[in-house]
Parts: sequence; C-alpha cells; structure tokens
Amino acid sequence: MKVLITGGLGFLGLRLARRLTELGRLTGPSGKPEAIDRLTLFDVAVPRPRPEGLDKRAELVAGDIADRDTLFSLVDRDDIAVFHLASVVSGGAEKDFDLAMNVNLMGGLSLFEACRRLKSCPRLVYASSIAVFGGAAMPPVVGDTTKQTPQTTYGTTKAALELFLNDYTRKGFFDGRTARLPTVIIRPGKPNTAASSFASGVFREPLKGEGCVVPVGRDTPMPVMGYREIVEGLIRLHEMDGALLGDDRAVSLPSLTVTVGQMIEALQRVAGDRPLGKITIAPDPFIEAICRTWARDARFDRAITFGLPRAASLDQIIRAYIEDYVDPVGAKGAG
Amino acid sequence: MKVLITGGLGFLGLRLARRLTELGRLTGPSGKPEAIDRLTLFDVAVPRPRPEGLDKRAELVAGDIADRDTLFSLVDRDDIAVFHLASVVSGGAEKDFDLAMNVNLMGGLSLFEACRRLKSCPRLVYASSIAVFGGAAMPPVVGDTTKQTPQTTYGTTKAALELFLNDYTRKGFFDGRTARLPTVIIRPGKPNTAASSFASGVFREPLKGEGCVVPVGRDTPMPVMGYREIVEGLIRLHEMDGALLGDDRAVSLPSLTVTVGQMIEALQRVAGDRPLGKITIAPDPFIEAICRTWARDARFDRAITFGLPRAASLDQIIRAYIEDYVDPVGAKGAG
Repeated sequence: MKVLITGGLGFLGLRLARRLTELGRLTGPSGKPEAIDRLTLFDVAVPRPRPEGLDKRAELVAGDIADRDTLFSLVDRDDIAVFHLASVVSGGAEKDFDLAMNVNLMGGLSLFEACRRLKSCPRLVYASSIAVFGGAAMPPVVGDTTKQTPQTTYGTTKAALELFLNDYTRKGFFDGRTARLPTVIIRPGKPNTAASSFASGVFREPLKGEGCVVPVGRDTPMPVMGYREIVEGLIRLHEMDGALLGDDRAVSLPSLTVTVGQMIEALQRVAGDRPLGKITIAPDPFIEAICRTWARDARFDRAITFGLPRAASLDQIIRAYIEDYVDPVGAKGAG
Repeated sequence: MKVLITGGLGFLGLRLARRLTELGRLTGPSGKPEAIDRLTLFDVAVPRPRPEGLDKRAELVAGDIADRDTLFSLVDRDDIAVFHLASVVSGGAEKDFDLAMNVNLMGGLSLFEACRRLKSCPRLVYASSIAVFGGAAMPPVVGDTTKQTPQTTYGTTKAALELFLNDYTRKGFFDGRTARLPTVIIRPGKPNTAASSFASGVFREPLKGEGCVVPVGRDTPMPVMGYREIVEGLIRLHEMDGALLGDDRAVSLPSLTVTVGQMIEALQRVAGDRPLGKITIAPDPFIEAICRTWARDARFDRAITFGLPRAASLDQIIRAYIEDYVDPVGAKGAG
C-alpha cells in the first residue's frame, strides 16, 4: 500500500515517516495489514540533502496543497492511507490570513476531495490542534465535548476541518480520524512561527548552551506532549477500529499541563550537571495575546478510553529529547 | 444606506425585505441610523410577477452566490448592511453534497470576502441553524455553549460558517452576528426540500382543506418559532451593540419545543369550527433518519439576555399565520 503524509517533511511528518519505515505495514482500506511499498512525503519544499532514516520507498514531493490537480495526482491508488499534517501554524496564520485559509481550509478540502474520488474508503488521520478552543466562554478545562470557539485563524481553520472530516466520513467518502494535538515538544532545530514555539525553545536552546528568551510569563500554563507519544498516537488512531470512534471522529490526544516555571524546573532537574544556556522571561504582547486565547488545561477522556499513549512526566519528555537529539546513540558509538 | 439580503427572494428573505421597507432605516456601519435607499434581494432566480410589499428601493437580482465577481458587484458600497440567508436546505444538501458545499460554504465565504474588501466594517447577520447540533454526544438540550457535531452536510456547512464569521469579525473584516434559527414555521406555499418541511405542512395543508402526510412519528419533538419573531430577531440582532456579543458572535434564537402531536392539537384548538384537511402520520425513513440527528430540545440563554423576541405559544404562531396567509385583512376588506 501507499502512505501519503502531507507536511511530510516537517518535524512531525518526518518522524512519522521514519516510524512507518521501521514498521513497514499499516492497516489498508481493506481492513487488513498491508506492506507499505510507497511512502510519499508531500510538503512546500524538499530539503537537501535528503533526510536520513528513509529508504527507497520514500518519495519526496514539493507542491501547493491547495492545488487540486496536485493532490489528485498524489492520491492515485485505492490502497492508500493518508496522514494530513500540512498546515500554516498559529503565528504565521495570524500574520497571513489568506495563506492560512488557502492552505489549512482549501488545502484540506482538496485532499478530502482527492480521497473521495477513490473507489476505496481510505483511512485519513488529520492533525487538528488544541488551538480550536478559546474565547470568553471557554471552560477552565477543555476536552472532547467542549464547544470550539477558536480565537485565531489557525484554530478556526483547524476546527472547520474537524467538522468537514466528520461529514466526509459520515458520507462514506473516506474513513477519517482527527487527532487533536496539544503543543508538541521538544522540536529540534530552529524556532518556527508557531506562537507556542517557545515551549520547545525553552528546553532546546539552553541544552545547546544558548540563551533563550521566553515571550510569556513564568505562570503561563500549557498542555504539552512529547513528539514520540504524538507520533505513536497518530499511528494508533490510524490503526483503530473506526466504529469505536462513532460519529465524532475527533480525539483530544493526551497532554500534560505545565507552566513555564515547571518547564524550567524540569529542565534543570533532568540536565543535572550539564551546562545550560540562560533563560530570560521577556513577555511579547503579540505572542501573549495569542497564548491568552488558548486552553489553560485539557482533558482527554476518549484518548484514555482508546488507550492512546502518553508520557508520564515532563522529565520523561526531556530525557527522550536528549536521547534523540542532544546525545544520540549514533553520535556516541563507533558508527 | 444599502441593504443586501442573500436568499432575499425566499420566504424569510422577502418577509425581512418587507419589514425593512416599512422600517425605512437601520444602523449603518457608522453606528448611526441611516435611511435605506437601496434594498437588494439576491437569489438564484427572480420570481414573476414582482413580489408585493416592496417599493422602488428594492432591486431584485438573480445569480450564483459562489461566484465572487457577482458578490463583489453586489457589495459595492461602504454604507451597507448584509443579511445572509441564502442556503441549500437540509434535505437538499443531503442529496447534493457538492451543491451544499458550493453554496453554503463557498458562497458564504465569497460574501465574507466581498464585505472584507470594503473600507467600512459593515454589519452582517447570518442565519445559521439548530441543525449544527447532532450526533451521539449531543446533550438532551442544546444551546449557545453546546459543541457542534452536526450529522448532516447542511448542519456541517452552517457550523463551519459560524466559525468563519467569528474569525472575520475578530479580524475586523466586518461586524458579524449569527442567528441560530430553530425550525421556522408556518411557511406558506409549497413544501420545500428541507427535512423539516412537514412542520409547516402539518398546519398549512389542513388549513387549506387539503390532506397532509407527516413523515415522522407523533412523538417527534422539534424546537420551532414563528416567522414574525424570527424576522424581528434578525433585525434586532443587526441593531444590537456588537460589543455585547463578545468573541462568540452566535446566538441561538428563542424556540418552543413541541411534538407533532402537540402541533396537531394546537391546530385543532386554534382552527375551531374551520374545516381541516386530514393529517396522516406516515413515517418516511429518509426524513426520520435526518430528524433523529437533530436536537430534541433547545435553550436560548443569550437570546433571553439580549431580549430577543419569542412567541408565547404555538397557538399564537398559528393565529399569526391565519392572519397573514389564510384570512389576510386585505382579502376581507374592500381593497
């Protein structure tokens, strides 16, 4: 079978691709496990050199997700599974409304239409976001049954696509499953335009020995989860019996709610004797305004029912990051 | 100022147009009352002869709401108010998914874009629907804070446009207000493709002396409201200080929850000695399947706070219909 990952060359997309490369198989539209013979990673640009951890099954394609012809050419087999991660992120969407509507809404609908044209009913896992919640009426703790009144264009487009995924699934056009992601940490590399970027930077930069400026206050709470658990969650959601999901195909993935202060304490605890770069708290009104609209705490009842993976502690998430990116096994060993 | 009503030649649109013709003025984008010098009724077709109750300010235009150029030509003045009623209705949307997406979603977004291009920040009142609610997790009573998990394409597109209206308003592109309508009764004329069409037919046909087949069971409950109150509600929502609405611009309009059995009893009570056509209960699986997904009861807390109009009883709604359509004053008098 073929697996298509939109946003497949982003951080989560690539980690998902590597994990699927290891696994080698997924449940196909037939409902039976099938070997993956093609792994198509679609994104706005293809990085050079070719990312590691992929094999010859991987095909890297650059293009515009809002272009239907492109999407139709990618969704070209009945034996396909789709992971839809492509998105303009929160800060970027606030700065370019039209781009966010085009990529997040129209791009998502183009993908949905491409799946609808198949003879099969492929499984499609869509990465939504906790940013669908917000506003004055938002309860102190958000979850699977909370009304979605997002206060960003990012959250608005994410929430709308949750609705359309439910309807395309109800109509039998594909078999959709929405994973509603908390803030995913710890992203390696450089900061991105997500307003939540600091939630990775606060660990990443100090562990590199670099200074880090946190643009929100120390008491700011944020539901977070590690990338390992999120990638496993996306795959588990794909593999689940869809009938268990019922008519609302969306599941808030598990999260840990921690404040910036708790992030810093956990980092210092896990780092031990490592030298850490300096962390400066310097609130930025643009970022704070976005963060204030977000959920302060989250429940994930359905995810618990379905047994979706969660990290037990922030310390565990930091240790995984150190293992994967700061002191990788490959860098220590002879090879 | 100009007033644009999309779906302006439908039942509610025309009643709204006549009421605005009587009123002669509305609050303009400036926040001050302005005289209406142009009333543009946009719809898929213009009826012949020209409907009564309009004057020379009324301009009747036929076209495709999903065509941006058409919308941009209609939203051509900064001093404008918009009532967005155009929609493929529930039964029709279930039968033609693409049409519903094109008209309800893309048409709505075209209108929003047209308003966004203006120098002013015009008020826009959008008629959403109680059909945004549904699904297994729907609570016994729905309302302003209930999560929207619609189980029809109609409800899905209506819910998505509520989200986008909030975001366009938050961005300052226009000043939007969503009226979430219950089933509006009693519609004169012929049945339409709305699955709720019987909720008007059960009164209308018997009052004409004609037989009526109700496609759902006698115990089926339905939140309803009279068209007089709905039209006044749309205007009142337009006239309100938008700041009172906060960041969720949608308000569930008041409703009365009645069963089919109660509809029939109220009709017999109000009709008195009038001969009534026969009512036959003959459940239709297609209609029943849609109705089962709908809300069985509704709250309207925000509408009460804002003092939006409601009929005191079903009897009052039936009497208004008889006054307006069965025994109109004009038909009794010399003229």
